[in-house]
Amino acid sequence: MQVNIPLKKVVDNSYDISIDTLKKIHFDTKVAIITNPKVAGLHLSYLLSFISAKELYIITLSDGEEYKNQESIDTILESLFNHRFNRKSMLIAFGGGVIGDMTGYAASIYQRGIDFIQIPTTLLSQVDASVGGKTGMNNAYGKNLIGAFHQPKAVFIDPYFLNTLAPREFGAGVAEMLKMAITFDKDFFEFLEDADLNDKELLAQAIKKAVETKASVVVKDEKEHGLRAALNYGHTFAHVIENETNYKEFLHGEAVAIGMIMANEVSLSLGLMSRDEILRVKNILQKYNLPTSYKIKNSNSFYDAFFLDKKSSDESVTFILAKAIGEVEIINNVEPSVIMSVLDKFGDVK
Amino acid sequence: MQVNIPLKKVVDNSYDISIDTLKKIHFDTKVAIITNPKVAGLHLSYLLSFISAKELYIITLSDGEEYKNQESIDTILESLFNHRFNRKSMLIAFGGGVIGDMTGYAASIYQRGIDFIQIPTTLLSQVDASVGGKTGMNNAYGKNLIGAFHQPKAVFIDPYFLNTLAPREFGAGVAEMLKMAITFDKDFFEFLEDADLNDKELLAQAIKKAVETKASVVVKDEKEHGLRAALNYGHTFAHVIENETNYKEFLHGEAVAIGMIMANEVSLSLGLMSRDEILRVKNILQKYNLPTSYKIKNSNSFYDAFFLDKKSSDESVTFILAKAIGEVEIINNVEPSVIMSVLDKFGDVK
Repeated sequence: MQVNIPLKKVVDNSYDISIDTLKKIHFDTKVAIITNPKVAGLHLSYLLSFISAKELYIITLSDGEEYKNQESIDTILESLFNHRFNRKSMLIAFGGGVIGDMTGYAASIYQRGIDFIQIPTTLLSQVDASVGGKTGMNNAYGKNLIGAFHQPKAVFIDPYFLNTLAPREFGAGVAEMLKMAITFDKDFFEFLEDADLNDKELLAQAIKKAVETKASVVVKDEKEHGLRAALNYGHTFAHVIENETNYKEFLHGEAVAIGMIMANEVSLSLGLMSRDEILRVKNILQKYNLPTSYKIKNSNSFYDAFFLDKKSSDESVTFILAKAIGEVEIINNVEPSVIMSVLDKFGDVK
Repeated sequence: MQVNIPLKKVVDNSYDISIDTLKKIHFDTKVAIITNPKVAGLHLSYLLSFISAKELYIITLSDGEEYKNQESIDTILESLFNHRFNRKSMLIAFGGGVIGDMTGYAASIYQRGIDFIQIPTTLLSQVDASVGGKTGMNNAYGKNLIGAFHQPKAVFIDPYFLNTLAPREFGAGVAEMLKMAITFDKDFFEFLEDADLNDKELLAQAIKKAVETKASVVVKDEKEHGLRAALNYGHTFAHVIENETNYKEFLHGEAVAIGMIMANEVSLSLGLMSRDEILRVKNILQKYNLPTSYKIKNSNSFYDAFFLDKKSSDESVTFILAKAIGEVEIINNVEPSVIMSVLDKFGDVK
């Protein structure tokens, strides 16, 4: 005997991202703002001049990638249980990517899923983490290995928050913009080569362009069965670098910058990019004061670490490689010897 | 400036439930069977005569509702990480509802979601937990308060496993069948009044009918925005009873049986059921040796505990009430005094 469960249906997870000064908004529910002490100290009063709610709670987590773990998730969940949040309650992620990912993940598992809104305060989270619905946390095995796909109800990008952003943090955000330009949009790359992003109007345009580029990819492949993997350009290498340096030496975007340099060396070996093109990428990274070198201590252990990365299949590692500038290839069968000789290069002088 | 992320699309989470002797099946991936020592001792060799895989792992969790917690989830996840499971790997839940819920939850958060299959070994999990995609675990605040909606790829119900089921466990499964009959299908109720479920053919028919009834509800309301809440008939009371008795005195189905008796008293007070109808329900519960009484020590604390249950909204508790036999009403605004006087009844002699 057989019973079919026909769960085929239209699901609408659409949402709007506004790039603008915040507007007044009132929630007729319980709301928890999840943030960290640094963001709260700088910007909570500004935020609260726009947000009101039937009941408002502030949950403050320790600041930093090293707190993107089960303990912080438990802190959020326990607070929600203690304050009797229900399925109609709302979470607001107010901070960078760490806060956004953890807030989204907590929202996805609290009572099997409640709504959340993103108000990203760093350039990196504005252009990257706030689009696409990836949520999660790190554990002893690596970065973002536990998580869920859970789309926000809305994203509010207010460039005001960038006024207090440290130059390194700003550069880290530009690195993610460059990632999208190099893999999908040569015009955007050239815009970023020419533009002065201190100009607020040009910066807002760049944010919009980055958000649109990422959105177009996510819409085609929400759960990363194919194309979306292209957004991990530079990340396969970056995750190993971040692990090796305990997330202390580089900001995420900085590790991605180095990762793109490494990926491009693979592209060069495979004839996908010219020496001129990889130099052009290196130049633009340097324009935005991003790091372009890293000393690999042990190529073998660096290579082995790829297999702990979740984007990897059983026996092969997936590499996301730029093809010229503005195109991307996802390749599963790169010869280990090609990768090893690239890794060895970074073990020498650089 | 505004960017819309148009994530509206057709999602197909359909799957088949077979009610039959298992068939041979080979997986060309890594597979982990999640089970407990009792089920493994009785039935693992039988299962392994059907299942083969490229790589097969067995993860054995302690048996019992009290182990449906973060520690057990961590045990699963750590094993998957240690064995380098990837997004194409498969989990198989082999046991009762506890194993099914935890396996599904672990599958939903491992690398943002991998596939799983249910092979339920108790009557309760065959008719209830294996249909609908609710996954989760308990925590200090209550039952199933952390979790996700994650549909299995397939469910294999093999009545063979019921041969070793203890009579109380069997009765607990019948209680969930009765829940579905009382709320949705008078014919099914009368079938269960008349049938001898020791007859294997009648039992298979009853399982199929229960699965179909639940499926028809889940298909209309996968994420419990409305109708699906009706499947919680008896459960609002049962969860409090289970908490008060530390999940030790009653099996889940037994607590649901008592919960249905309590809910029916509310129906009686509101004129939704007649005295004859609630007696008929009591009789059928007794036919299947299910408990129908419980001594409430403190009506006030019993009432307060409703508000920790996730089905509750801010200020009111949702009650799922039978209307006659075969129909259901979901009511948000039952006067607290009505509930209190029902609870007080159970504080007396019963």
